[in-house]
Amino acid sequence: MPARIQPVILCGGSGTRLWPTSRTSLPKQFVPLLGPHSTFQQTLLRLQGPLFARPIVVANRDHRCLVEKQAAAIDAGVTLLLEPERRDSGPAILAACTLVAREDPEAVVLVLPSDHIVTEPRAFRRAVASALPAARAGRLVTFGIEADHASTEYGWIRPGTRVEARCHAVHTFAEKPDAARAATYLSDRWLWNSGNFLMRADTLCAEYAAFDPDTAAAAALAVEAAADEGGALALDAEGFAGTHKTSLDFAVMEKTSRAAVARMRCGWSDVGNWNALWAISERDDLGNVSRGAAELFDTEGCFVSSDGMVTSLVGVRDLVVVAEKDAILVADRSRCGDVRKMVEILRSKGRPQAEWHASSHRPWGSYRVLEASDGFQVKRITVAPGGRLSLQKHRHRAEHWVVVRGCARVTVDDTVADYRESEHIFIPLGAIHRLENPGNDDVELIEVQLGSYLGEDDIVRLEDAYHRA
Amino acid sequence: MPARIQPVILCGGSGTRLWPTSRTSLPKQFVPLLGPHSTFQQTLLRLQGPLFARPIVVANRDHRCLVEKQAAAIDAGVTLLLEPERRDSGPAILAACTLVAREDPEAVVLVLPSDHIVTEPRAFRRAVASALPAARAGRLVTFGIEADHASTEYGWIRPGTRVEARCHAVHTFAEKPDAARAATYLSDRWLWNSGNFLMRADTLCAEYAAFDPDTAAAAALAVEAAADEGGALALDAEGFAGTHKTSLDFAVMEKTSRAAVARMRCGWSDVGNWNALWAISERDDLGNVSRGAAELFDTEGCFVSSDGMVTSLVGVRDLVVVAEKDAILVADRSRCGDVRKMVEILRSKGRPQAEWHASSHRPWGSYRVLEASDGFQVKRITVAPGGRLSLQKHRHRAEHWVVVRGCARVTVDDTVADYRESEHIFIPLGAIHRLENPGNDDVELIEVQLGSYLGEDDIVRLEDAYHRA
Repeated sequence: MPARIQPVILCGGSGTRLWPTSRTSLPKQFVPLLGPHSTFQQTLLRLQGPLFARPIVVANRDHRCLVEKQAAAIDAGVTLLLEPERRDSGPAILAACTLVAREDPEAVVLVLPSDHIVTEPRAFRRAVASALPAARAGRLVTFGIEADHASTEYGWIRPGTRVEARCHAVHTFAEKPDAARAATYLSDRWLWNSGNFLMRADTLCAEYAAFDPDTAAAAALAVEAAADEGGALALDAEGFAGTHKTSLDFAVMEKTSRAAVARMRCGWSDVGNWNALWAISERDDLGNVSRGAAELFDTEGCFVSSDGMVTSLVGVRDLVVVAEKDAILVADRSRCGDVRKMVEILRSKGRPQAEWHASSHRPWGSYRVLEASDGFQVKRITVAPGGRLSLQKHRHRAEHWVVVRGCARVTVDDTVADYRESEHIFIPLGAIHRLENPGNDDVELIEVQLGSYLGEDDIVRLEDAYHRA
Repeated sequence: MPARIQPVILCGGSGTRLWPTSRTSLPKQFVPLLGPHSTFQQTLLRLQGPLFARPIVVANRDHRCLVEKQAAAIDAGVTLLLEPERRDSGPAILAACTLVAREDPEAVVLVLPSDHIVTEPRAFRRAVASALPAARAGRLVTFGIEADHASTEYGWIRPGTRVEARCHAVHTFAEKPDAARAATYLSDRWLWNSGNFLMRADTLCAEYAAFDPDTAAAAALAVEAAADEGGALALDAEGFAGTHKTSLDFAVMEKTSRAAVARMRCGWSDVGNWNALWAISERDDLGNVSRGAAELFDTEGCFVSSDGMVTSLVGVRDLVVVAEKDAILVADRSRCGDVRKMVEILRSKGRPQAEWHASSHRPWGSYRVLEASDGFQVKRITVAPGGRLSLQKHRHRAEHWVVVRGCARVTVDDTVADYRESEHIFIPLGAIHRLENPGNDDVELIEVQLGSYLGEDDIVRLEDAYHRA
């Protein structure tokens, strides 16, 4: 039996064009955009079967708990490779291949973005399997999607001469074209560049080193000096900082003579913006997609999603309306690519909603800010069964907790006690404290913080079950 | 010096076309739609000067504290006449005139809706003064606005022959016409019916009695049996229930031979829907009106208002976007009249947002629901200086209070004590308790309620400073 394919899943993107649902604090790939699973989970599920080894997930440290929780929720085992910072796909893929090549240089690696949707995973796996001979023979195979419209949002590939079975050499890579060129590409049967790659680890490392030796050396250093962090492998920050920030297409694929393209028809979408999500979602007779507490009157062709607020549309056409607790987007469906510009505007104005959600996920559970005001803040805190916040103290705030669900174990200085529903705990300023959920059901608390400074960074961690101390 | 004009301000409307800002719990007339004052307050301010007596305000009991607070905030004294239920403008005006006629049958009454905007109050007062001779002579004078466009939203009046100075007999009343007829009315210089009236109290009572003797008798009974309620006069419910629910136009004006119309040009708008508010608001170069945390990118002709959430518009035209904490409206600006239909849909689906705001105003201050869940609820409570909640208990819930601003005086059973910022009070289920603000600044608390039933009606009032016990 030949060696399995080693999947490498890229989780580093921030997906600003799906704002306000996707933000730095919970980017697109961790959001259930279509169906019950996030696109990251869908990517893991796509890799089921004997063809694939345990996936390597390359992710930012900030998203570690999301990766672990979401993988665990679907019983998928992963190997975590933590990036110290975002440096685009090139260095991430190179580091992963360097790691894989240390064990088995000829191992074949399948690189997958974590934020795509594939409605026909079997067809996806078939296409991967059929490209294996070319990858084994030293080709850098990219998967090309058979285009069904003249997209100006994707990169295109013109296939060249046939090489190994089902693969063609790449004649031309063309970045996002204008409408006229896109129409030509479509009629000439060019393919969309899907961003999925299949190749031997050693081939990729060698080609990368040929075109960018500095980055190859830096990536090798980052992997060599990588440290175990409670089961995850953290790339060395200094080494990784020496890589050039760039995409694999730009660093290698557009330069190498080994580039090949394999056709794929698998219900693929990169869900690049809200309009793309509308296009692949089930629509009603009037072309509307409606999620959450939405009400529509004489409305057509709209995508509306509401996180609780009653969102009412009256007499409108072809809009995207996304309502989160702290941020709302109303965009023309044909202008969804510009949502990225709106996020830049919000960032330039210092609006926290550009990057942060009102809800935050933590290894131990999650919290949501219910009210923020001068001198006080109210949060709803959920601690998962077995969850254990760090032993900590605050320099600038006192906290009141009221248990509203379940039974919480609370340490305050030298005392440990259990508190049930409707019990109150006061954490004085400076007190060393810890919150735990020793039970089998979620614990929920309402927290009222009071103090001169209420930032998340006013936490002095004395001990932490999740390696954050 | 002649007797002053007796203003009667009608506060009974519910303004559903300005949903979600205007709802039954805080209708349009109490909202600061344009500038710092509500239209109710603007109506009071319009009546300053020696021409007018202390206004009578006809309002629903539920809105009493709003009327009193908003009048007090601009130092305006009012006489409150409480309607037991909404029966449209006819019975409300008739009851007020019956009341006025008991003191002085010949008193001249000026009826004003409380939800209109008049940008030139002096011109308004001049027009009223100039119609006085006609009213004194027994005319029922309605004020006609010189039309500037072919509105299909207003009633129109065709003036007839001249009667007293500056007044014309009414030749025709025409209800909301179609566009073609509206265009004809405009070119024939018909007037818009503003819903403001000037007439002697006895004339109105006599004419009403002539056309609808049952209602006249019922209204007389409602006034005769009216009861003093801590300074307000509450119409007798049984009597008032005997009146026919109808508008004054329909009950009297369209039938009487005494109808007259006086021209008025005073920057009038009935702010009948969001588009009307957009039209009278200051707009930027691209025709946008923007209030609160709104961000616009390549957007034209829009009205956007946000109650805190960052509301972002991308590439849209001629929309109304109104975001309240619990409800959002996105409507085409030309379709704002249909917002009323959306409210009906929400009502038919039992959505509380059709009628109720997340924030509620009370005589002692206000509160806002921050979170509502099974078994618990979180509120932010503000008690105004001198404010005093009723002495009360709950049958189904316990409450935790954390003071986050100011100093609260709290009674729990036999104890009264003052609590400062960051102090916690527990109100056990069934405990008799009271919250007061003895200081000069607002007191704010976060309340966590826990119990099997959390409805507002689980309050057993033992004593109340605002006549609600």
